[in-house]
Amino acid sequence: MSNLKEYQKVSEEQHKNIQVNPYGPNPSDYLSNVRSFQLIESTLREGEQFANAFFSTEKKIEIAKALDDFGVDYIELTSPVASEQSRADCEAICKLGLKAKILTHIRCHMDDARIAVETGVDGVDVVIGTSQFLREYSHGKDMTYITKSAIEVIEFVKSKGIEIRFSSEDSFRSDIVDLLNIYKTVDKIGVNRVGIADTVGCANPRQVYELVKTLKSVVSCDIECHFHNDTGCAIANAYTALEAGAKLIDVSVLGIGERNGITPLGGLMARMIAADREYVLSKYKLHKLRDLENLVAEAVQVNIPFNNPITGFCAFTHKAGIHAKAILANPSTYEILSPSDFGLTRYIHFANRLTGWNAIKSRVEQLNLNLTDDQVKEVTTKIKKLGDIRPLNIDDVDSIIKDYHTEVSTPMMGATDGPAIDEEASLLESVKKPRLN
Amino acid sequence: MSNLKEYQKVSEEQHKNIQVNPYGPNPSDYLSNVRSFQLIESTLREGEQFANAFFSTEKKIEIAKALDDFGVDYIELTSPVASEQSRADCEAICKLGLKAKILTHIRCHMDDARIAVETGVDGVDVVIGTSQFLREYSHGKDMTYITKSAIEVIEFVKSKGIEIRFSSEDSFRSDIVDLLNIYKTVDKIGVNRVGIADTVGCANPRQVYELVKTLKSVVSCDIECHFHNDTGCAIANAYTALEAGAKLIDVSVLGIGERNGITPLGGLMARMIAADREYVLSKYKLHKLRDLENLVAEAVQVNIPFNNPITGFCAFTHKAGIHAKAILANPSTYEILSPSDFGLTRYIHFANRLTGWNAIKSRVEQLNLNLTDDQVKEVTTKIKKLGDIRPLNIDDVDSIIKDYHTEVSTPMMGATDGPAIDEEASLLESVKKPRLN
Repeated sequence: MSNLKEYQKVSEEQHKNIQVNPYGPNPSDYLSNVRSFQLIESTLREGEQFANAFFSTEKKIEIAKALDDFGVDYIELTSPVASEQSRADCEAICKLGLKAKILTHIRCHMDDARIAVETGVDGVDVVIGTSQFLREYSHGKDMTYITKSAIEVIEFVKSKGIEIRFSSEDSFRSDIVDLLNIYKTVDKIGVNRVGIADTVGCANPRQVYELVKTLKSVVSCDIECHFHNDTGCAIANAYTALEAGAKLIDVSVLGIGERNGITPLGGLMARMIAADREYVLSKYKLHKLRDLENLVAEAVQVNIPFNNPITGFCAFTHKAGIHAKAILANPSTYEILSPSDFGLTRYIHFANRLTGWNAIKSRVEQLNLNLTDDQVKEVTTKIKKLGDIRPLNIDDVDSIIKDYHTEVSTPMMGATDGPAIDEEASLLESVKKPRLN
Repeated sequence: MSNLKEYQKVSEEQHKNIQVNPYGPNPSDYLSNVRSFQLIESTLREGEQFANAFFSTEKKIEIAKALDDFGVDYIELTSPVASEQSRADCEAICKLGLKAKILTHIRCHMDDARIAVETGVDGVDVVIGTSQFLREYSHGKDMTYITKSAIEVIEFVKSKGIEIRFSSEDSFRSDIVDLLNIYKTVDKIGVNRVGIADTVGCANPRQVYELVKTLKSVVSCDIECHFHNDTGCAIANAYTALEAGAKLIDVSVLGIGERNGITPLGGLMARMIAADREYVLSKYKLHKLRDLENLVAEAVQVNIPFNNPITGFCAFTHKAGIHAKAILANPSTYEILSPSDFGLTRYIHFANRLTGWNAIKSRVEQLNLNLTDDQVKEVTTKIKKLGDIRPLNIDDVDSIIKDYHTEVSTPMMGATDGPAIDEEASLLESVKKPRLN
């Protein structure tokens, strides 16, 4: 354990010593918000649209409190128009007195707006489909009608003294002139934010950069972005949007939402901490991430994906011999993210045939045994040989190391005696002891 | 079912009708390979470094055959130097006579190269750490030594008449001048490919674009890219690399590899099909993706992540009422990816409190019942009401619809009779019937 702590300490110092972070903000992005982004947490809105989601009032309150404790800037809730219970839940969460601002998400329609402003929310997120697809197949309205509705709803919500965001839907398939026209109009009326949404999850990073940068030159209000993850780019798109000058990113815990969801909170934290560790740590309680993800995963009955950023079971596990050697010498060689920032620990996987003698040496030290480097190399060869025959676990490796240690500590028995066939039998003998796990 | 088929047909026609694909290649990328990329499939190399991986010879052969059938261009295998079995497996796979070219991945060292060229591979992938971190903590070599070794190994492999790739490791933390120098040198000697690797998984898309574009101006050989996924950008980085002129992307099934892995094959397919459906369908058997992922997931004992692109259980599930309406009218409104391309089907989630009457109408038709639009709206209200009380499943909704249908088809009983409290009791009565699932 003292070894582990030492690596951790070295890791932290190394993190400080990197004077120029190669993964930091691009200095040519003058309007970048990489160092000053905010989160609109939508587990209780977008996340409720996830196939498996059914949140009771108690569960919603528990999640809202956990999100607030984590430090998210906004919490977005399902429209109070969706159902009677949705409305009651929205009112209940507004009464909790959380630090995070509470938003609700409605269609661009006065019927919805009138109900939303009565719930006690701090702001209203209005959305309308501006692409030809949504205009044709969803609501059937033209841009003149959309603009007229937007103005009416925005002025009404503003008259109530609460925040208002206007967002297009399916922005990347909308006519750019239509888009800029309506954003310019609503910006003049005084919305707090305009939103861009990749509703179908197919935008790519450079496309995002261009659209956000263009929009940034047209409006003076903040820009919020919402990215679906159908093509696996939701985290990268969010980062690139911030580089281009967007300020707020919509996230949900584990990314839950329609289809395979949106930018995940945890994944975005990984991305942002690589860019600006200090800012992220100053704002968000990263060590609560695992509990938060477990809370939501349990509520919607899914497992944390094995490859989840940060909290996936193998996110900080190193296996190949060549990797293990360097990571033991300096964790920054293969890790920019420090597991301790998230209340987690690193794991060097030494029980496999790809292992190297540096990983085994570290295990020998953990076992408090004394072996020379040459001896460690010899026992490593034995371990790799058994690893070729079948999967190894920690007990297997420990048995081989301990038997070898006994052998070399007893001068009468030569460690290298006997032909190969005997060695294999002896290896299997070493690991035949009963195991409890 | 006839309804589903019709939607599918409409979907396919819509896909053809989109004359300009807003998610297609950026016309300003003159050197883009988005329409001509190749895959280096590394499940049997990078994937073997995944914490849970232990592939028997038989399993490796099964996976190699499945990858070949899927249509990957190259299959990369663990170094034959890693263990005796690794070498034997490498030789066995080379003898299968697959269409895909077989590569093995070695350190930049003559000892490794001499063994590699004897295995029967079509090419050798050489890698060496060029960042200050890896030079200091991994192999301890300076750039002069690295260059000298690279030249020796490359000329040796070339003399055997097989392909050779030279890659740096941790490229984004390497000195750009060192990097370009060594790439220029190995390009002159005549390597088939040079490789860029984001070994720590922290690069971001625009950074990738810049480095690949710069490298493209220095070398005439192909560029291969390898992206780890620690910060969730591995798919986006791969796409952006292709835009900048890279030709080959390293992938593994489900992205398995060191830590949380690399660019996943399935996720990249989703990304690429959104950009150029025709090219992707002409090269890769996408309908085999699910089986391939299941094969590997079983071999390494993980579950397919719930939010996996394409094959995650909810990738083509639509829930919110407003979404369901549009998707029923035209799938392209919320789906660029067509589930039928992957041998999968779309699912409109209608059994929940966010449901809308369009989704319920579609279910009524599936049940072969006749209800007017007003009646569908009325039964939808009933369904949403029960959805507020507890999670709904398909049987619940079907029971409510069928009971309602019986009611309105029997003129003696008014559908709207009785106070609200009775209605709730009657709803619960509707769904009390025994269920088998």
